[in-house]
Amino acid sequence: MTGISAMSRFFSSKFKGLEPYTPGEQPKDTSYVKLNTNESPFPPLKAVTDAAASCRPLNLYSDPTCSDLIAKLAEVYKISPDRIIPSNGSDETLYFAFLAFCDSGHPAVFPDITYGFYPVFAQITNTPYTEIPLKEDMTIDINDYIGINKNIFIANPNAPTGICLTTGEIEQIVKSNPSNVVVIDEAYVDFGGESALPLVEKYDNLLVVRTFSKSRSLAGARLGFSFGSPGLINDLNTIRFSTNPYNINSMTLAAGIASLENEDYTIENCNTIIKNREYTTDKLRSLGFEILPSCANFIFAKHAGLDGGWLYAELKRRGVLVRHFTKERICQYNRITIGSMDQMNVLISELEDILKER
Amino acid sequence: MTGISAMSRFFSSKFKGLEPYTPGEQPKDTSYVKLNTNESPFPPLKAVTDAAASCRPLNLYSDPTCSDLIAKLAEVYKISPDRIIPSNGSDETLYFAFLAFCDSGHPAVFPDITYGFYPVFAQITNTPYTEIPLKEDMTIDINDYIGINKNIFIANPNAPTGICLTTGEIEQIVKSNPSNVVVIDEAYVDFGGESALPLVEKYDNLLVVRTFSKSRSLAGARLGFSFGSPGLINDLNTIRFSTNPYNINSMTLAAGIASLENEDYTIENCNTIIKNREYTTDKLRSLGFEILPSCANFIFAKHAGLDGGWLYAELKRRGVLVRHFTKERICQYNRITIGSMDQMNVLISELEDILKER
Repeated sequence: MTGISAMSRFFSSKFKGLEPYTPGEQPKDTSYVKLNTNESPFPPLKAVTDAAASCRPLNLYSDPTCSDLIAKLAEVYKISPDRIIPSNGSDETLYFAFLAFCDSGHPAVFPDITYGFYPVFAQITNTPYTEIPLKEDMTIDINDYIGINKNIFIANPNAPTGICLTTGEIEQIVKSNPSNVVVIDEAYVDFGGESALPLVEKYDNLLVVRTFSKSRSLAGARLGFSFGSPGLINDLNTIRFSTNPYNINSMTLAAGIASLENEDYTIENCNTIIKNREYTTDKLRSLGFEILPSCANFIFAKHAGLDGGWLYAELKRRGVLVRHFTKERICQYNRITIGSMDQMNVLISELEDILKER
Repeated sequence: MTGISAMSRFFSSKFKGLEPYTPGEQPKDTSYVKLNTNESPFPPLKAVTDAAASCRPLNLYSDPTCSDLIAKLAEVYKISPDRIIPSNGSDETLYFAFLAFCDSGHPAVFPDITYGFYPVFAQITNTPYTEIPLKEDMTIDINDYIGINKNIFIANPNAPTGICLTTGEIEQIVKSNPSNVVVIDEAYVDFGGESALPLVEKYDNLLVVRTFSKSRSLAGARLGFSFGSPGLINDLNTIRFSTNPYNINSMTLAAGIASLENEDYTIENCNTIIKNREYTTDKLRSLGFEILPSCANFIFAKHAGLDGGWLYAELKRRGVLVRHFTKERICQYNRITIGSMDQMNVLISELEDILKER
């Protein structure tokens, strides 16, 4: 990970065995067709970068209450401000949620195949956790989570599968675990999933986590936002004000507000990604790929004739970067971000070549 | 703090009694002469804001390795890259240090009068801690820390006093506690203090924490950086990659690099602040204020004829915002940020008025 040094003799033994998360490659060489970290292929609007450039003067601290951004989120998502907390990327809120709500008496549970950061968050917060296997078809069996009496973390749509649950299914899980927090990580919901946001005012144990990194083209600005009961939001703010109160910089706050003032652009881009996803899925299926049904801005694909790890390396050699996971159950797949039509056509053409040369 | 809601029934009991940090006021009403949070009165250079505006495209994730910024820091501070870690403000690294190095077997120690966040970091990381009283004259007695065998956190110059220790004194503390980490928080060192940076290559238990928020006019961009042994840096990176690997956004990374490419501006601003500090100190002393000897971009001042809390409120009523702490030992003082000469003259004139009207 950091690749340079070993642990010091001062590192607390409470973290023995901690395995940090490995983010996707972020090569500085921008010549790659970069389809590995589910970024948007579309730049943010000029109105957004202009807003960042004309933010509150940088010699002054950013607003720790983030009140302007919260007001704008409240307006766009039609929910009261005390049910909203922004964050320095959605990872930060996920970490805060593990820290705030989990402990030895309140273990966590999540699928075996999901966002790879959940077990790391569990480890660093000393949270006992259980991974529940997805079904054979890579879907979540909601019966596994009904009345389980543990804090539940579900990515919906799930990553890296792209498969989503309905709001009705989420509600059954939330309703049946009233003594536990259910965190629904909706990083990818804007690409065709169903949001649990309408349930937030009904259940005090539901936290819905969102991000500006995918549909809003702001991965590099680092901005997440979450919805929950005022109590949950208060607890997350207690953690925030006890670790890093000025966690969001002024440029990002301004960019976020400007993005929310231009919803049409986000919606248009999401529609393009959905269209490109269907196009790419069809093409790859016609090449013999098996592709899980995706509601996200990526597809999870495998091919009976191509080893997953080998295909990742071969695509990289050809200048196309996708994401491969070594976990046994999914090591034959690659996760491919849906980009622009040009990017998708390069991918398809390289895959055609690879299959021809086999 | 958040002011809206109560704790939820889900908040882990491990945080019972946790009192979050209270940041200084950040009023949106910019008509105040704002001398309360030790910001620079000087905006960052246009080269810095331009660099932020032309950073890596925001639809892509920021570089989690921060390698360009680290290379630039290595060049400017003449230290090897594996001894450097940047952060989302220096608070983040301070939190990481408490989390990484402290536990029930490795308690923390710091002065009773210092940066008010240290006890909060200790509480949220479940670290047992001791506060050692400053001497009567508000200086640190280094004998209190020699061979104490606990992890030590010292702000140097100290806040809110502004008083600094010499590098020789810091070395005695570091050398006498070889089994513990000594964290020297040098947020204010550029205004006349002595840095412990030269000791970093000599002692593997020393972490020196710095920030772009004060001398570099980038409080709103959120950027800190720390120096330590490769082992300590590795441990902090383990925490970072287990909580929020993309913790620094692309605009801030670019702004930080540009700031480091323009050292003259930073040095010039620091010299101006030092000059304004001496000017203000003289003027206030001539008005009967008692002022601690400051090496920072603030002074800590009290007046035998004026109650500290009352003076804070009266200055605020007159449009001058300073920082008051209610802690008994220092409640007669106010911490006053050193700003531009214009700002200082407004402050002085208001204080003259107040004293006349008494």
